[in-house]
This record gives sequence, C-alpha cells and structure tokens, in this order.
Amino acid sequence: MTAKKVILTGDRPTGPLHLGHYVGSLRNRVKLQHDYTQFVIIADVQALTDNFANPEKVRESVTEVTLDYLACGIDPAISTIFIQSHVPELTELTTYYMNLVSVARVERNPTVKDEIQQRGFQRDIPLGFFCYPVSQVADISAFRAHLVPVGEDQLPMIELTNDIVGRFNRTYNCNVLIECEAMVSTIGRLPGTDGGAKMGKSLGNVINLGESADTLKTKVMSMFTDPNHLRVEDPGTVEGNPVFTYLDAFAPDTAAVQEMKDHYRRGGLGDVKVKRYLLDVLETMLAPIRAKRAAYAADRGEVMNVLRQGTARARAVAAETLDAVRKAMRLDYFSKE
Amino acid sequence: MTAKKVILTGDRPTGPLHLGHYVGSLRNRVKLQHDYTQFVIIADVQALTDNFANPEKVRESVTEVTLDYLACGIDPAISTIFIQSHVPELTELTTYYMNLVSVARVERNPTVKDEIQQRGFQRDIPLGFFCYPVSQVADISAFRAHLVPVGEDQLPMIELTNDIVGRFNRTYNCNVLIECEAMVSTIGRLPGTDGGAKMGKSLGNVINLGESADTLKTKVMSMFTDPNHLRVEDPGTVEGNPVFTYLDAFAPDTAAVQEMKDHYRRGGLGDVKVKRYLLDVLETMLAPIRAKRAAYAADRGEVMNVLRQGTARARAVAAETLDAVRKAMRLDYFSKE
Repeated sequence: MTAKKVILTGDRPTGPLHLGHYVGSLRNRVKLQHDYTQFVIIADVQALTDNFANPEKVRESVTEVTLDYLACGIDPAISTIFIQSHVPELTELTTYYMNLVSVARVERNPTVKDEIQQRGFQRDIPLGFFCYPVSQVADISAFRAHLVPVGEDQLPMIELTNDIVGRFNRTYNCNVLIECEAMVSTIGRLPGTDGGAKMGKSLGNVINLGESADTLKTKVMSMFTDPNHLRVEDPGTVEGNPVFTYLDAFAPDTAAVQEMKDHYRRGGLGDVKVKRYLLDVLETMLAPIRAKRAAYAADRGEVMNVLRQGTARARAVAAETLDAVRKAMRLDYFSKE
Repeated sequence: MTAKKVILTGDRPTGPLHLGHYVGSLRNRVKLQHDYTQFVIIADVQALTDNFANPEKVRESVTEVTLDYLACGIDPAISTIFIQSHVPELTELTTYYMNLVSVARVERNPTVKDEIQQRGFQRDIPLGFFCYPVSQVADISAFRAHLVPVGEDQLPMIELTNDIVGRFNRTYNCNVLIECEAMVSTIGRLPGTDGGAKMGKSLGNVINLGESADTLKTKVMSMFTDPNHLRVEDPGTVEGNPVFTYLDAFAPDTAAVQEMKDHYRRGGLGDVKVKRYLLDVLETMLAPIRAKRAAYAADRGEVMNVLRQGTARARAVAAETLDAVRKAMRLDYFSKE
C-alpha cells in the first residue's frame, strides 16, 4: 500500500461560501477527499491581513465556512479541516522563509500586484498583506502537500513555493521540504447573477450555499440574461448568458440543457421558463445542503469539535515539519545530540 | 511596594561581545538589573535575517554571548536571559502587528534605510530583514517593557513601537499593549582599536571580553594613536586618539588620566607608555571577567540551564501578552465565554 498524496486547499473566512466556491473547489474537494489526504485550511490569519479592522467578521466567517464545508459533504473523518490561527507553527515557518525571498521578488508576484490594485492599497499596503504569499508557502509546505488546487491566476504562488522550498533545502543542505504541484482547475469561473465576472457579497450577485428557498427564488428569477431578448419569440443569445452558464455548471441533464439552448437561440423560449428550470435544478441541489447546514448550525458544539479535532491533527503535522526545519537551521540548541 | 519597571535589552548573536558592547550596554545592564525587571533577549531570529546562510555562526554565538553576559555579572537569578527563537509567541505577535504598519512606513524607517545601504542589499533585501523592525516591536511589547536602552540612532524603533501599540489598542478597542520609552545612552560609541568609528570582528579592530592576556597585549600595543606623534618629545593630540578614548572609558583613576593627557599634549610622553597603562587598566578589568567566562565555558550544562530557565520564564510572560492580544482580536474561538 502506498501512502496517499497530500492536498492542501482552503478558503479565507470573509463570509459564507457561495455557488462560485461550490463549482470552483468545494465540489471537487468532496470527491478528492477519498483518494487523497486532504487538509482544508480556514485561512483566518490571511483574511486578517486585509480585514484586520474587522476581526468580528473573520471570526463569524470561520464558523460559516465550516458549516458550508460540512453541509457540502466535506467529511471531517477523512478531511482535516483546521484553523490557520490555531496552528502557530505556521507563523514560525513564515518567519524563516521570509529570509529566503527578496522584497523585489514578492513585489513582482502578479497575484500580489493585482490584489494590491484591486484593493487600492498602493504604497500604503499593510506589510502583513504584502507578505501573505510567504505565509501561503508556509501553509503548503507545513503539510508536505504534493498538490495544490489552484486557478491559472494562482500559478505564481506555486512557483514561489517551489522557489523557497528549493532555496531552503540548498541553504541548509537538507531535503526537509518538498516541492508541490499545481492542480489547475479546468472549470471557468462562475459569473455573478448579474453576469459580472467578479462575484461578491457586497456586489449582491452571489447565491450562498445556505440560501433560503425564498431568497434563492428571488435571486434566480431576477438573474441577468440576454438584454436583447425582449419578447419570447425573439432569438436569444446563450453565450455569456449567466442563466445558461449556471445550467451548464449545475444541471445534471445535459441533453435537456442542450435542447433548451437550441430553442432559446431559435426564439420561442422565454427567460422565465429557463429561470424556473434553473431554480428547480438549484433547489434540488441546495435543499439537502441547506438542511444539513441547518442541522449543524443548531449544534454549534459539534462544529467546534470538528474544528478542534481537525486543528489538533493539523498542528501535529505542522509541528513535525517545523521541528525538521529548526533542526536543519541548527536552532535545536536544547536537543541532546 | 510598587512593581519594578520592565526593561528589554539584548544583542544579536553574531559573535562574542567586545569592549564596545561593555561600554555601550553590558556595564549598564549589570547596574540596572537591581532596580528593574530586566529581560535580556538573545535575538537569534533577528540575527538570521541577514545571516540566514550561516546558521552555525548564530548558533555558536548564542552560547558565546551568554558566556559574556554571565562573565560580566548579568545575574540570571534577577535578569531573565532568553533566546528569541525559543519564544515562538514572538513570531505570532509579529504576524499580527504586520497588518498595522504599511510597507511605506517600514521603508521610511531611517535605521532600516541605513542598514540596507551598509549591507549593500538594495532591492534584493531579504523580506525577513526588511520586516525585522516589526519583530522588534513584538519583542518590546511582548514583555510589556516600559524602558528600552537605545542609542540615538535607534529612536525610530521606539517610535514605530509606540505607533503600532497605539494602532493596536485603537483598532481592537482595548489597552492590552503598553507604550515604551527610550532610555537613551549618553555614552558615545567606543572606536575600534584602529581608530575607526565602526567596530567589527571582520575589521580586526575589536577587543573581546574573553580575550586572552596575550592577545589583549598584542591588540593594545598595536593600537592606532596620533599619527603625527612621531618622537616621544613631540606634542601629541589626545582628541580622536583611541588610546585616550579607551582610558576615558575604562580607567578608574580619572586624575591620573588627566595628568597623562596634559603630559602627552605638552610632549615627552611616549605612546608605548600610555599603551602600557591602558593595558594595565584593561587587564585589571578583564582578568576576573576572563576567569569567570572560562569557568562557565567549562560547565556548558550550567550555561544551557541558565538559557533554558530564562527562556521558560520569558515564554510565560510572552504567552500572557499573546493571549490578551488574541482575545482582543477575537481569535479566542475555543474559549468558553
């Protein structure tokens, strides 16, 4: 029997998870957990780098995200769900890795560049936010992850990880750290219900996993469609029409979706009818998730237990890596040897 | 009875300590330890930020520096001598403080600017080195230090500390962290034996505290003096003459030193004679330090015990501060309240 490969994945707790997360990662994690040793990090320390003035939001989101995980079927018996801030070994690793990367190298990282622009930080960027890529390297390497599921845009993070891993092993003449590989998602990003490429709670264009049946209905029925499809009999455009993108992502009956697309293109199929179909698909998918989420939400103690146990398990693994790192760096002053 | 005020002081372990350290801080610490609660940090994590490729030097220097402390009279029963890398709470505090300071603010810090220039880092400065001022803020605030002995050039560090302390307390609406005050040294820097303003092992111009009697003699007798004082009968210059600077710093008989200065200025007093006097002064001062150092060096177990106990004591205090910091940041997810 060969050991399973290790996957590190996770989320920043800045709000409940939505359909975008489900398509992009959650659904995949539920499958992957059977074939891999999966660590799921709730990255609250990272979330605080740009939400430091709003710790209450981060704190509440830790529970929300955990509820979403459990409701979707991430099984804490086989996946290790843990809280970043409660594995302090990660901050130690980050500290030592920061010596192995230059300020210029982090500045060049396109992900950081983009995010700095998106957040409008400019030169006043918090130092903690600037340094978060190194903290991600600590997350990945601490758990000796072989694979990291990422989008195309996060490939520089994998590159930085392997740079630091290689530099560490060479500098300290050891093979303590292992390189990782990107597991690049082939699935495109789900657009917002308004058709926008960026989804966000503040944009009001997301459907949360725990959405009530009523809100789900309101949100689906008011989704953006083809703005030129004014009358039912007009021919409509399927491409870039979020209702069809959602059907592609979630409807199990692909033949039925294909038929609807053809009909819509020809004309004669109204938006309301397509939306009702999508609502049905989503309600069928979300109803059990919603129910499971509510059950866990009513048993806060159990949720905290999942986090407590997962975090203890994660901490033991990270502590082993840190121990090896400290030995390699000759910081084991008090050891017997 | 009012509680004693807390002092944080210490050194980067990058080699044994020398007379410059003795004049600038060690001598003072031996006095201060009776009136203050003194924490003495051996800042190996900071030393690694620009010695990351030379961990063996840092490791060895931790013991060397401790030997110097004990030999000089820093008493581990009343002063807490501890190793930075073994108080991991400090890296956690650093992580959270990094959110409260901008990249631009750290870049503006004149101490960092100078040191970047001195080390020739330019843009390739290691991120760890760039961030070390924030790690110093963690050191100071973790021990709730009221006073930090510094040179004029380190005042920006105190300012940064109080900036972050204030920002933390305001952001998290608490008074967990306390501001500190600089205890500015009035004593000028001791020059090297070559008269240079910068002392360094690599420059070969330092007299270590543990220097053997033979080496001490060689170093004193070859000290730089007034280059225009060619013949004994010539008038000599006392100002900027390191032999006299050393006498001012170490000779207990100030009247005798004044008399020699007058004689040297008039002419008729040879350099060899002045150097012999200085050698006598230094040998009298260093002989008991050397003996005490050798005794400790022969009992490595006892030295490690001092470090183990001091570090445990320091860790308990830092853990208390970190606990309060985490509570203020609402990171106490698992607490009962």
